[in-house]
Amino acid sequence: MTDANLTEEIANLCARARRASRKLAPRDRATKDRALHAMAAGLRARRGEILEQNALDLEAARQRGTKGALLDRLALDPARLESIAVGVEEIAELPDPVGGVIEARTLASGIAMQRVRVPLGVVAMIYEARPNVTVEASALCLKAGNAVVLRGGSEAFYSNRVLAKVISEALERSDLPPDLAAVIPFTDREAVRALVQQSESLDLVIPRGGEALIRFVTEHARVPVVQHYKGVCHLYLDLGCDVDMAVNLAVNGKLSRPGVCNALECLLVDEADAARILPKVAAALLAGGCELRGCERTRALVPEAREAALSDWGYEFLDRVLAVRVVRGLEGALDHIARYGSGHTEAICTTDSSRARRFQHEVDAACVAVNASTRFHDGGQLGLGAEIGIATSRLHWRGPMGLEALTTMKWILNGSGQTR
Amino acid sequence: MTDANLTEEIANLCARARRASRKLAPRDRATKDRALHAMAAGLRARRGEILEQNALDLEAARQRGTKGALLDRLALDPARLESIAVGVEEIAELPDPVGGVIEARTLASGIAMQRVRVPLGVVAMIYEARPNVTVEASALCLKAGNAVVLRGGSEAFYSNRVLAKVISEALERSDLPPDLAAVIPFTDREAVRALVQQSESLDLVIPRGGEALIRFVTEHARVPVVQHYKGVCHLYLDLGCDVDMAVNLAVNGKLSRPGVCNALECLLVDEADAARILPKVAAALLAGGCELRGCERTRALVPEAREAALSDWGYEFLDRVLAVRVVRGLEGALDHIARYGSGHTEAICTTDSSRARRFQHEVDAACVAVNASTRFHDGGQLGLGAEIGIATSRLHWRGPMGLEALTTMKWILNGSGQTR
Repeated sequence: MTDANLTEEIANLCARARRASRKLAPRDRATKDRALHAMAAGLRARRGEILEQNALDLEAARQRGTKGALLDRLALDPARLESIAVGVEEIAELPDPVGGVIEARTLASGIAMQRVRVPLGVVAMIYEARPNVTVEASALCLKAGNAVVLRGGSEAFYSNRVLAKVISEALERSDLPPDLAAVIPFTDREAVRALVQQSESLDLVIPRGGEALIRFVTEHARVPVVQHYKGVCHLYLDLGCDVDMAVNLAVNGKLSRPGVCNALECLLVDEADAARILPKVAAALLAGGCELRGCERTRALVPEAREAALSDWGYEFLDRVLAVRVVRGLEGALDHIARYGSGHTEAICTTDSSRARRFQHEVDAACVAVNASTRFHDGGQLGLGAEIGIATSRLHWRGPMGLEALTTMKWILNGSGQTR
Repeated sequence: MTDANLTEEIANLCARARRASRKLAPRDRATKDRALHAMAAGLRARRGEILEQNALDLEAARQRGTKGALLDRLALDPARLESIAVGVEEIAELPDPVGGVIEARTLASGIAMQRVRVPLGVVAMIYEARPNVTVEASALCLKAGNAVVLRGGSEAFYSNRVLAKVISEALERSDLPPDLAAVIPFTDREAVRALVQQSESLDLVIPRGGEALIRFVTEHARVPVVQHYKGVCHLYLDLGCDVDMAVNLAVNGKLSRPGVCNALECLLVDEADAARILPKVAAALLAGGCELRGCERTRALVPEAREAALSDWGYEFLDRVLAVRVVRGLEGALDHIARYGSGHTEAICTTDSSRARRFQHEVDAACVAVNASTRFHDGGQLGLGAEIGIATSRLHWRGPMGLEALTTMKWILNGSGQTR
């Protein structure tokens, strides 16, 4: 296919999604929830076929030499498929964000004003391996009254194709246009470039994946982008903090799931209290199989720590590796975080309420936690029910993006003939 | 200056604004309000100098042959300058959006969660003629805790230069970094292109001006853009509507200020009642000096109407010209608006509450008015106090952008050692 044909086909597909979104926007909650339940039923009914197609992707991946975590992300099995179906049913149970009143007031002119939530329109998701994203993103966008255009990775080609079929069957069965969820069958970069330039048809692009993909999308987009960049999360252990709590927060933050964006990547410890705090925290991390990379003063207290390189500050290890630095109190921690943090999640362990307040006030990140694990920066934990990702960009939304983040607003005025 | 030097100078200026914004973000309301009052005082103290510099711009404009509305937008006089100063004092009186709690909840884990408003960071404004925007944008951004980078048009070069001086003096006098409000001294397109690519330093770009400028910015931006496109606003006169109200809404919507974005550009009338409604409404408009361009059925009822061309539907006249079309009831009006509306403001005049509801529900626009003039789609009227523009894009904000629209959010967690 030539680039011109590719661009035209993608433009047509996006235009159809736009038309379908206009038909969905005024539909009521019951219609949308019915389609979500049909989607869950379809996932169960076509289980065999889905697993067969997924096996083709897995086989191809193995032949390319893919192993470990990457292969695991791609793999579906009956239990995972069931949990995806349950996830869709849970989205159906969530309140409908559309029509929600953000603000209501009677204006000086006597006009009744309401600012209400309405669907965004058409959302494009660009993502890698995980086929569950195909279903989750479709379900969230549908519930918020949006059409979705999905461009998954080549690794999941067969899985995404059959999942797209299940989704469009569910839409048809619910008397909704199947164009509401479109899967782009082209997996090369040219398709991404063509997609993110459809400014007439798309309202938002969400790239999920490695930094290179996100930068590529940001570079070429003519459509607003919400970025989900890396999480370089810090935990600062303050003078006088509870050492048992510090141990728990550090071990949970690093070791419960090292490979995700709310994992700790760096521990900061107040120099005035490091001798009391650091050996115990380090011992627990080491016992859990974590490699420590420390500054000179860390290594004086924790001989097992390797020497940290300058490049270890601000690095997202996504592994059982943690950078450790002794700093000059809160001031030193704030400076380090301002310089090396990625604006995702930052935490402090402290017993001092004024330093806690200052940390929360001055740290510039999507989520700031006092005496709580960075793991709570998660849509489910924060009560959103489901999330499409955690936004590290600042415009429109920041942090976990649930249904509300997939809407925009409309100002509604009801008067009795007022002019001005 | 070479392009490379220009880009470097703009990058430096944006980086300084970023550093200044970090210093401003944690400052309290009193500091910001003090700076705003100093700004208003400075405008009054330097009145002579400001008017002198503005006279240089006006003289240059006259020599280029500029006339009428364009010249008027550029001109300052003592009364206008005083009203700009009063506007800044009014912004100081508005509540501080920063720190406002959007949502507060105790999570299942016992953690106290708050979602609060924080400054966006650094906002770039790109605009044409009007020098008052230099002051208003600076004041709004400062109040919301942001730095601002201003790139005004060449027409206002001298005016903007002296206003920039007044603003930075006010910041210094209030012990705030003068880099918080930076005026870019380069007025060519190359400077715009360099500016909108400073993704490391800018969080938002707001272009204000003609469609060509907005498209240029959108095309080249690597920073999120909120667009303020045109307003092609419709008023639909429904079967059975109050003809006196229809006359008032049409005359106010078109003739009170034909040249701004919330002005009516097209009147739609239900065919079933056009004979009763249209002649009176048309007579009032014609009496006010408005040219009417009508469809065939309009011209049968209003012989004074000229024949509308196809290109008159969806056209922003910004003048004493109004397109008029007889349509097949509400359905016909909704179709016309979906096809030709610009998503800015749409109004209906009706006595039927179910058709009113359907119009509000189905019309996709930033503001939808029932029995109220489109003129109420305005920051001051909607109670925002002041606005930086009316957004016609959907992401982040839609409609009049006041202080809240210049903030983002932060999730704050307070726990007692919770892990998961």
